[in-house]
Amino acid sequence: MREVFQQELSQVKDLLVSTSKEVNYAIQGATTALATLDIPLAESVIAHDQAIDALTADLDELSITILAKQQPVARDLRVVVSALRMSANLERMGDLAKHIAQVVTYLDKPLGHDTEIVDVFAQMSESVLDLAEQVTRLFETEDIEIARRISADDDIVDAHHAHIFDITLALEWAGDRDETVNITLTNRYIERFADHAVRIAEKIEYLATGDWS
Amino acid sequence: MREVFQQELSQVKDLLVSTSKEVNYAIQGATTALATLDIPLAESVIAHDQAIDALTADLDELSITILAKQQPVARDLRVVVSALRMSANLERMGDLAKHIAQVVTYLDKPLGHDTEIVDVFAQMSESVLDLAEQVTRLFETEDIEIARRISADDDIVDAHHAHIFDITLALEWAGDRDETVNITLTNRYIERFADHAVRIAEKIEYLATGDWS
Repeated sequence: MREVFQQELSQVKDLLVSTSKEVNYAIQGATTALATLDIPLAESVIAHDQAIDALTADLDELSITILAKQQPVARDLRVVVSALRMSANLERMGDLAKHIAQVVTYLDKPLGHDTEIVDVFAQMSESVLDLAEQVTRLFETEDIEIARRISADDDIVDAHHAHIFDITLALEWAGDRDETVNITLTNRYIERFADHAVRIAEKIEYLATGDWS
Repeated sequence: MREVFQQELSQVKDLLVSTSKEVNYAIQGATTALATLDIPLAESVIAHDQAIDALTADLDELSITILAKQQPVARDLRVVVSALRMSANLERMGDLAKHIAQVVTYLDKPLGHDTEIVDVFAQMSESVLDLAEQVTRLFETEDIEIARRISADDDIVDAHHAHIFDITLALEWAGDRDETVNITLTNRYIERFADHAVRIAEKIEYLATGDWS
C-alpha cells in the first residue's frame, strides 16, 4: 500500500512539474507578445489556457483519488492537500497569463511605446519569468532554498509594479487614457502572477518545515 | 463514527456560514466607504480582514482534521475538499474587500465624483452585496436554485464592470489620471469578488448534481 502511495505521490509531483512548465510557456508567450505586439502569439497563449485547465483538473482528480484510496494522514495528508491548493495557484497563473495576452490583442502599439514603461515592463517580465522557472525547479527538487529565494525575488516584481504606478501617475506622463488603463491592468496581472508563485513557495516551505498553513 | 462525521460536517457548514457573514460585512463596509468616502470605515474593513483570515484558517484545519480522522470517501470526501476550496474563495473575497477599502484611504473625493460613475458604482455595489448575501443563504440552505441565481446575477455585475470601462474610455470623460487608475482597479476588485461568489455557487451545484469539478 505504501509503495502504491509513493507511486501516486510521484505522479502528483510529475503533474505539478508539467503543469508549471505549461504555465511558464504561457507567461513567456504573454510577456513576449506584450513586448513585441505579436498578436498571433497572444492568441496562441489565450487558446493554450485550456491545456493548463485540463492539467490542473487532472491534478485535482488524482489528489482526490489518492485521498479516497490511500486515506493518508499526518504529513502525507498535508502533501496531498497542498497539491490541491497549488493546483489552484497554477490554474490562476495560467488565467493571468491569458489576461495579459488578451490585453495585447486590444493594442495597436506596444504598451508605453516611446516611454520608460517599455523598459520597466521588460525588466518586470524577466523577473516574473525567472520566478515561474524557479517554481518548476522547486517542484522538481523540493529545495526550500529555492522557496525562500522566490519570496525574496517577489520584492523585485513588487518594486517594478510600484515603479509603473509612479510613472503613469507622474505629471509628465503623456500616455493616453486607453493606454493608462491597459498598463494599470497588465501591471496588476503580472504582480498577481508573482503572488501565486510566492503562495506556492510558502506551501512547499511549510511542508518542509512542518509549519502548516 | 458516522454520527461524529455528521457533527463535524455540520461544524464545517457553520464555519462557512459565519465566514461568509464576515465577508458580507467587509464588502458592505468597503462599498459604503467607497460611496461616502468614510476613511475610518475603510480602515476598520482593512483591520477586520485578519478575522476573515483566521476563520478560513480554522476552516482549513477542521477540514484537514476530518480528512485525517474520518477518512471520508465518495460524496463525503468531495464535500470536505469543496469546503477547503470554498474557504480559499472566501479568504480571497475578504482580500478584495480590503483592497477596495485601501483605495478609499487614498482618495480625497468620491471616485467618479460629479459623474455617472458614482451611480454605476452604487448599482454595482448593490449587486455585489446581493451576491454576497446569496452566498451566505446558499451555505445555510444548500438550495441549488440559489446557486443558479448567483451565476445569472453575476452577469449584472459584469455589465456594470463593462459600463464603467466604457465611461472612463469615452471621449467626454474628464476625470484625472489618478482617478481613472483608481476606478480601473476598484472596478476590477468588485468584478473579481463576484467571480469568487460564482465559483462557490458552482461548487455547491456540483456537489448537489454530482457533476464534479
